[in-house]
This record gives sequence, structure tokens and C-alpha cells, in this order.
Amino acid sequence: MPLVRIDSTGTPIELLEKLGEAIHDALVEAIGIPADDRFQVLSSGGSRVIADPGYLGIRRDAGVVIVQVILRSGRTVEQKKAFYGAVAEKAAAIGVEPRNILITLVENDLPDWSFGDGVAQYVQ
Amino acid sequence: MPLVRIDSTGTPIELLEKLGEAIHDALVEAIGIPADDRFQVLSSGGSRVIADPGYLGIRRDAGVVIVQVILRSGRTVEQKKAFYGAVAEKAAAIGVEPRNILITLVENDLPDWSFGDGVAQYVQ
Amino acid sequence: MPLVRIDSTGTPIELLEKLGEAIHDALVEAIGIPADDRFQVLSSGGSRVIADPGYLGIRRDAGVVIVQVILRSGRTVEQKKAFYGAVAEKAAAIGVEPRNILITLVENDLPDWSFGDGVAQYVQ
Repeated sequence: MPLVRIDSTGTPIELLEKLGEAIHDALVEAIGIPADDRFQVLSSGGSRVIADPGYLGIRRDAGVVIVQVILRSGRTVEQKKAFYGAVAEKAAAIGVEPRNILITLVENDLPDWSFGDGVAQYVQ
Repeated sequence: MPLVRIDSTGTPIELLEKLGEAIHDALVEAIGIPADDRFQVLSSGGSRVIADPGYLGIRRDAGVVIVQVILRSGRTVEQKKAFYGAVAEKAAAIGVEPRNILITLVENDLPDWSFGDGVAQYVQ
Repeated sequence: MPLVRIDSTGTPIELLEKLGEAIHDALVEAIGIPADDRFQVLSSGGSRVIADPGYLGIRRDAGVVIVQVILRSGRTVEQKKAFYGAVAEKAAAIGVEPRNILITLVENDLPDWSFGDGVAQYVQ
């Protein structure tokens, strides 16, 4: 269910794909998303990412990655914090700097999803 | 009002444009959007779409299309279901497999729209 | 905090960057965003923007710009109106037609943001 959009100007697509896997693993681990519920749109270089290099005291460089996750409402603040922490840990393990990762979540509801065949699978 | 974002890696832009028309027609028919209220961002190949090939028992292939619709709140579950069904029907008619279409809706409110000239046209 | 996504097919990237600055200045001025809280994804030509040429009586051409802003909830209708007006004024000053600018806002909450290092900075 989550739809994850990942944009980075300075990250090669191969690394962005690995990061996509890491983010999915973090969603599974921290939020309880099913392992086969992976839907992502990755953009490397197709768009230009602009990020302040020091907002909130975090140093960012050209490798900034913007992560936007659309997911149904209902997750706790603790789950969201665990998700951010898991992304940082898994990103560092593949060579993406946690300081360069901005994440924002947008919530909707169960009727707001169709996974194919013209059906609202979550509210049948 | 709806802002529709359509991403697909494996669908040519010409077909994506036809699909954009089909989605708009489905919004008009099922949700009551005015016929001239069409705003869409189509991306074919500029981004890389990753989609699980079997989540919820639906078989997907490289032609997966991700459709994200931002629209004001207030539509019923029945209207949303009718919209998903209409997209599937109209997509099939132009050769896009309904099993390959994921749709997610994000709702906002009337003051959250400006259609030009710096004015919030829905709350004047 | 706001994440601003700007798409235009007919606007050169250099002008889109200037528009990105103008939009950020409008956020600072009208909504009270900190000056160093700038995060944007600009796409010029990477995606195809489709916009009705006359919806709500506004004439649009190939220079249409779609602006999507994700920001935390809590801003008043008056602040949003002031933001739209400020964008129009600042865009005109750099040669982008206000009639060509569509803006939509999507709101989330403080726990929905991580600005790096795997931390939810707004709810620590």
C-alpha cells in the first residue's frame, strides 16, 4: 500500500534502487507493511532536487534524497520514528548518508487505494 | 481540480496520454469533475517504476502504471469505487491492462487550490 | 518543512529554478516558513504537463507550471490566500505568467517529517 516516491539528482539509479529496497525493508520492519506490498517511483537525475545545506543543523550535500510516502492513516508516532531510524540504519549500510535523507509521509484511507482490476481491494 | 500524476516506465508517452484522457473521463463520469477541469503530469520513462508482480493476487508486468490523484475531500466510497471501475473499463478499451493500474487518492480541501492569477478560486 | 514539487514542460530549468526561489520566498513571507527550510523537486521537460487552456476562465498556454506543496496542517485560509497572491506577484517579476501557475497544497502533521539522520525532528 505505501506508494513511495524517491527523488535524487546526485545519486545513481543503481544506488537509488538499493535505497528503494532499504526503505521497503524499513516499512516492513517498523510499520508492518507486507513484504510483497512494494510500489515505488524512483527518479535519478530526471528532476532537480534543491535542499538547504544546513536546515536544523544537518549538513546536506549534492547526494540529498527526497522520500515521499503515501500510506493509510493509523500509524503511531512511535512507528513513524522507528521507520525513520530503520531507514537511516539501512541506508548507511549501503553507503547512503543518513544526513542526506529527507522523508515526508502523507496519509489517506483504505478506500483511497486500488491495486489493479478497477477494484478497491481494501474495502470490498 | 484533481491533480493527476501518472508514472510508468514501460508505457510509451502516446499511450500514457490516451490513458490520461481515459482517467479524466472516469473522473468526470464517476466523481462529477467538470469536463474542462483537467490537470495532469505524465511521466513515461523519466522515472523508474517498481511494483510487486503479485501483491493481492494481481499479476503485474513491466507495463505497470502508477496513478496518484489529489482531490478535495467529500467523495463517497461508492464514488471512489465507481471511479476505479471506470478507469479499468476505459483503460482496457485503449489497450492498457487494468491489472497493471495502481491508483491512490490523496484528499485536501477547497482552500488548498489556486488555478492561476494568485487567487484561491474555490473560496473567494 | 514544506516539500515543493514543481513541474512544467514548457519552462526552461533556469527559469524554473528562479520560480522555485520565488515560491520559497512567498512561503517565508506569507506562511512563516524559516528562510533555510527549502526543499524542492523541479522537473522541466522530464514530465509532460497537461492543463486545460480555459478552466475557470483563466487562459493557460504551454508555459503552465504545476506546483504541489506538502506542508504541516494549521495554516489559515487567509495565509493560504496570501501565499497564492505572493507567488503570483513574485512570479510576474521574473517573467512567469501568474495565469499559468496552478498550486495545490497537501497537509500532514509534525510526526510526518524527518529531515535527516533518521530522526523526527519536529516531535523529539
